[in-house]
Amino acid sequence: MSGLSIKYLNHCLGSEKKHILEFKNTFSNIEEIRLKTGIDFIYKSKKNEDVLELSYRTSKKTLKNFKGKIDCILVVTQTAKNKLPPVSYMLHGKLGLEKNIICYDLNMGCSGFIYALSLIYSQIKCGFINNALLVCSDTYTKYIKKTDRSCGSIFSDAASSCIITKKESNFNPTFDFLSLGSGYSNLMEKNNVITMNGPEVFFFTTDLVPKLFDRLIKKSKHKLENIDHFIFHQASKLVLDNLKLKLKIPTEKFYTNIKNIGNTTSSTIPILLENLEKKKTIKKNDIIMFLGFGVGLSVAGYIAKWS
Amino acid sequence: MSGLSIKYLNHCLGSEKKHILEFKNTFSNIEEIRLKTGIDFIYKSKKNEDVLELSYRTSKKTLKNFKGKIDCILVVTQTAKNKLPPVSYMLHGKLGLEKNIICYDLNMGCSGFIYALSLIYSQIKCGFINNALLVCSDTYTKYIKKTDRSCGSIFSDAASSCIITKKESNFNPTFDFLSLGSGYSNLMEKNNVITMNGPEVFFFTTDLVPKLFDRLIKKSKHKLENIDHFIFHQASKLVLDNLKLKLKIPTEKFYTNIKNIGNTTSSTIPILLENLEKKKTIKKNDIIMFLGFGVGLSVAGYIAKWS
Repeated sequence: MSGLSIKYLNHCLGSEKKHILEFKNTFSNIEEIRLKTGIDFIYKSKKNEDVLELSYRTSKKTLKNFKGKIDCILVVTQTAKNKLPPVSYMLHGKLGLEKNIICYDLNMGCSGFIYALSLIYSQIKCGFINNALLVCSDTYTKYIKKTDRSCGSIFSDAASSCIITKKESNFNPTFDFLSLGSGYSNLMEKNNVITMNGPEVFFFTTDLVPKLFDRLIKKSKHKLENIDHFIFHQASKLVLDNLKLKLKIPTEKFYTNIKNIGNTTSSTIPILLENLEKKKTIKKNDIIMFLGFGVGLSVAGYIAKWS
Repeated sequence: MSGLSIKYLNHCLGSEKKHILEFKNTFSNIEEIRLKTGIDFIYKSKKNEDVLELSYRTSKKTLKNFKGKIDCILVVTQTAKNKLPPVSYMLHGKLGLEKNIICYDLNMGCSGFIYALSLIYSQIKCGFINNALLVCSDTYTKYIKKTDRSCGSIFSDAASSCIITKKESNFNPTFDFLSLGSGYSNLMEKNNVITMNGPEVFFFTTDLVPKLFDRLIKKSKHKLENIDHFIFHQASKLVLDNLKLKLKIPTEKFYTNIKNIGNTTSSTIPILLENLEKKKTIKKNDIIMFLGFGVGLSVAGYIAKWS
């Protein structure tokens, strides 16, 4: 039996902070949008702030705090400036690290943090690695049209990083995944423009996300009431409120930080986790659930004991 | 102890076949280039042949032959048409597969097949998956300038696919990796153009590749003479001849198919493997070595018993 330790959480945001009401000339119904999304502020990256730059900024802080030796860099990204090389190698070079490190990039959106955890967990279990630097980094706003009603006031640019290590535990983590490739066009980039079919993606979150939620709990052999913290991808207030209600999750165990930073895609879960860590909301041995969903379309879930 | 079985190997090439001598008006020294690269033919993808289309074409054939149920699709690519969603989801949708499948994309070049094998091996070992559809797919030529001396007469567009399953074995496979992020700019895409610093990449193959080679053999507890087949990334004749000589590999154990298809990046190893399988060159329980190197810069190695 073994678990994962997620430590030295850190993040950085695009440096152009925007209040949603600044978009009132673009979107006539901005107050209505604000009520639905629950977002007051989004952060856009400036021209020089690409995926690599944001990744570098947050990784430097994480590595400053971690005193061990990393042997893996995994970067989750969909909006790297260059098709090749992978961002993990550019980051490896910029950080001046030694050669004995496994580097790879995962192309994944809002389920990305959990996919990355499951791969790192597998690599650790097999004895291939011990300490991974996990970076989630995206700059969606560089590919969103200012007038896009579905995307224009939701997404923020951000990077998050943490160290994933092995932790002895009497409780194996549970992972579970579902894929709906037939819905891929509902959230995609084409000719440098990201578009989202809001109603279709919303329908997906009311349909496949609850299915995965139930299956994940069953697979973990826990009961809903034993789970102490529900840390979900921060899609929008509407989606989160709806899921909380439908899945019968007590409000005090369900967290959201979307108001002040927006939807940071693969970074929403690690940033929310960082917030909760700082407030000491999560205690040792608490049972946590992560749930990510979006681009793919995909759903990914994780239940584990916090250590 | 457990190993991997690599089956139902299949590939497809871009449908525009070009003889190298057709470039004689672009490159005055085409005969000299041809001697160095060892390449007679390259295959370019037509406009409608993108990474997804080539992936779909080869996957259909592999799945037609495989009678079991796949529970993972891993696509290795660096030149997908869309930044999101990942190609694995689009492929999942196009193939009309069920939802209970893990899908992810790995951004990796010429070491990609071995990186993918190591991730799938870890997932299988942890009991997360049983049968993975592994696809390597790239269309480099869409990003290469016709007049580029380093890239213009080397790369081919291709996709390869196979099924990776668990195989009981008394011999665990050995993986090893080295990363040189400081050299990332020597093979990269920028503003939709792929460029390569030929001399620097060549130097890297004479330096870091032999280091990984020696370490991999040591780690596997085999001796050089026990290894039956050396299946290396098909970079160019110059690189392969130099490695064969430097690493003291007997000619009869060292294979190349670059002459007729060029450098297909992450597909070179699986396509060469498919060729050798068809000729029944590799027998059950033979010891094989895969060695991939390139974009990153990265080196990846694998030693296993063939089953």
